[in-house]
Amino acid sequence: MDALVIDSTLRLMHMESPIPAPDQVLIKIRTAGICNTDLELIGGYMSFSGVLGHEFVGEVVAGDAAMIGWRVVGEINVADGTCDLCQQGIPSQCRHRVTVGIDRHDGAFAEYLALAARNVYAVPDNVSDEQAVFVEPLAAAFQILEAVHISPRDRVIVIGAGKLGLLCAQVLRLTGAHVSVVVRREKPRQLLQRWGLQAHTNDELPRKGADIVVDCTGSAEGFSSALELVKPRGTIVLKSTYRGLPGIDMTRVAIDEIRVVGSRCGSFEAALRALSANLIDTKSLIEARYPLKDGLQAMQHAAQPGALKVLLEVR
Amino acid sequence: MDALVIDSTLRLMHMESPIPAPDQVLIKIRTAGICNTDLELIGGYMSFSGVLGHEFVGEVVAGDAAMIGWRVVGEINVADGTCDLCQQGIPSQCRHRVTVGIDRHDGAFAEYLALAARNVYAVPDNVSDEQAVFVEPLAAAFQILEAVHISPRDRVIVIGAGKLGLLCAQVLRLTGAHVSVVVRREKPRQLLQRWGLQAHTNDELPRKGADIVVDCTGSAEGFSSALELVKPRGTIVLKSTYRGLPGIDMTRVAIDEIRVVGSRCGSFEAALRALSANLIDTKSLIEARYPLKDGLQAMQHAAQPGALKVLLEVR
Repeated sequence: MDALVIDSTLRLMHMESPIPAPDQVLIKIRTAGICNTDLELIGGYMSFSGVLGHEFVGEVVAGDAAMIGWRVVGEINVADGTCDLCQQGIPSQCRHRVTVGIDRHDGAFAEYLALAARNVYAVPDNVSDEQAVFVEPLAAAFQILEAVHISPRDRVIVIGAGKLGLLCAQVLRLTGAHVSVVVRREKPRQLLQRWGLQAHTNDELPRKGADIVVDCTGSAEGFSSALELVKPRGTIVLKSTYRGLPGIDMTRVAIDEIRVVGSRCGSFEAALRALSANLIDTKSLIEARYPLKDGLQAMQHAAQPGALKVLLEVR
Repeated sequence: MDALVIDSTLRLMHMESPIPAPDQVLIKIRTAGICNTDLELIGGYMSFSGVLGHEFVGEVVAGDAAMIGWRVVGEINVADGTCDLCQQGIPSQCRHRVTVGIDRHDGAFAEYLALAARNVYAVPDNVSDEQAVFVEPLAAAFQILEAVHISPRDRVIVIGAGKLGLLCAQVLRLTGAHVSVVVRREKPRQLLQRWGLQAHTNDELPRKGADIVVDCTGSAEGFSSALELVKPRGTIVLKSTYRGLPGIDMTRVAIDEIRVVGSRCGSFEAALRALSANLIDTKSLIEARYPLKDGLQAMQHAAQPGALKVLLEVR
């Protein structure tokens, strides 16, 4: 099969299709999505080598006979089911997990992916491939609501109107809270207006006024802005990872009694329900589509500043 | 009156006694305590100028006639009572507050202090001056329990066994949780053993094993240690302020979904109740006593590494 592989560099190569283990199903990939994490992995993050890609929709073609023919998405954290965190019902934080396309597990930028059957979720018929490919990042956006209780009376600010920020803003809108988004570019501004969300520049928003600030920027400046915008006793949700060890004003966190909450992967079931109920606009987030054979070009496109979701059409 | 004053330097000077405003009482200071914040203020923190000192017990000698003769302690945040945070019942975070001996309000290292009557709490008869002078830092230790729910089943680690860390450890012990304290010196190790608390070096404690880690070190290395010790989805409580903008591994916070909770001033009533119930050993924390006239020497003593509480006897 063809696959987009990182070893020392990123390249499109021909390789053997995976053979599913007894607990796995074989998934024929239909569509995959490029995430900023993929771009960071190319830059050396996690020292990953293998097939890239963790956002996908595909069809089960081998493994558990009852599942063959299912159109599916897949939870990316493959947990051992036995560690203390698994036992507490938090398999996404399994102490011995591997992660699809990120950490010691081949990914989805390929014709086939072998994945633990327990990680697979059937996609409802009324959810298209182009919607389903957003389930993984949409689940990560829903994780904000698992980490923090957001009240309909809260003032919430999302910083960073990229791929993930625009999903987070749409999810936060579902709470009834007053949601503003800090944007720099015209395209996300237009999308936000279409969704009835407030688009602002950083300077337009009051200092220390927000109950909750969600940082989706992927840069330490985002955290600094969040500290300026959140009110005392407010909450900053980190949806970003930052390169290196940025200088952080922890004294401000202590004195203003801020809560900083890290947030990672979320509920695939919640994301599928929201898509099935047509609560989230994913179509407007699609920037471009490429066939898998043009995967390198697709990655370059995804790396352009302001690029929204670039999809790989595999089937 | 005599007072220990910061302007460009720290010095003992003679000055006019304060005249209480209509909403204030005049307090004749009996005993005051030196806090690490006082040492930082001398170093330029908050750009404070005025009479130093925010831990004290004294006697009301003028102002509201009903309060004259009360032995009192005083909440250090003087709030306006009208801002949104005051209205939400969080006067310690008042947007227009001044802070006794820290920010635009004279402090308690003097013979007299004029303080808003609403900030004053009567000390029960069975609480001695030497206990009462610990009410302010003990209240800050109790603030951990307001910021974070600690279950009797939790594993809690306190990093930093200085003045504040030893109060925090004693308060955390009250929850029934399993409390360990990271110590470097022999004296706090002995105190902890006397209180039935576990004293460890950092290396003796399991990595990523604690539900809650409380950083009382006052250094960014403390936060790095906390990140090593806290388990995924666990909580780090910041009781420290750090100089400058230390490099912080926020990627770890995001990926492990850590909660970082800043914590500052707490309930004076809770602290007074705990002292009155004899739940906290403050006597063992007293390192030395100096008369106010030897205040400069007292500050030097308090600045010695490992020094516990240095008291100023004023009356």
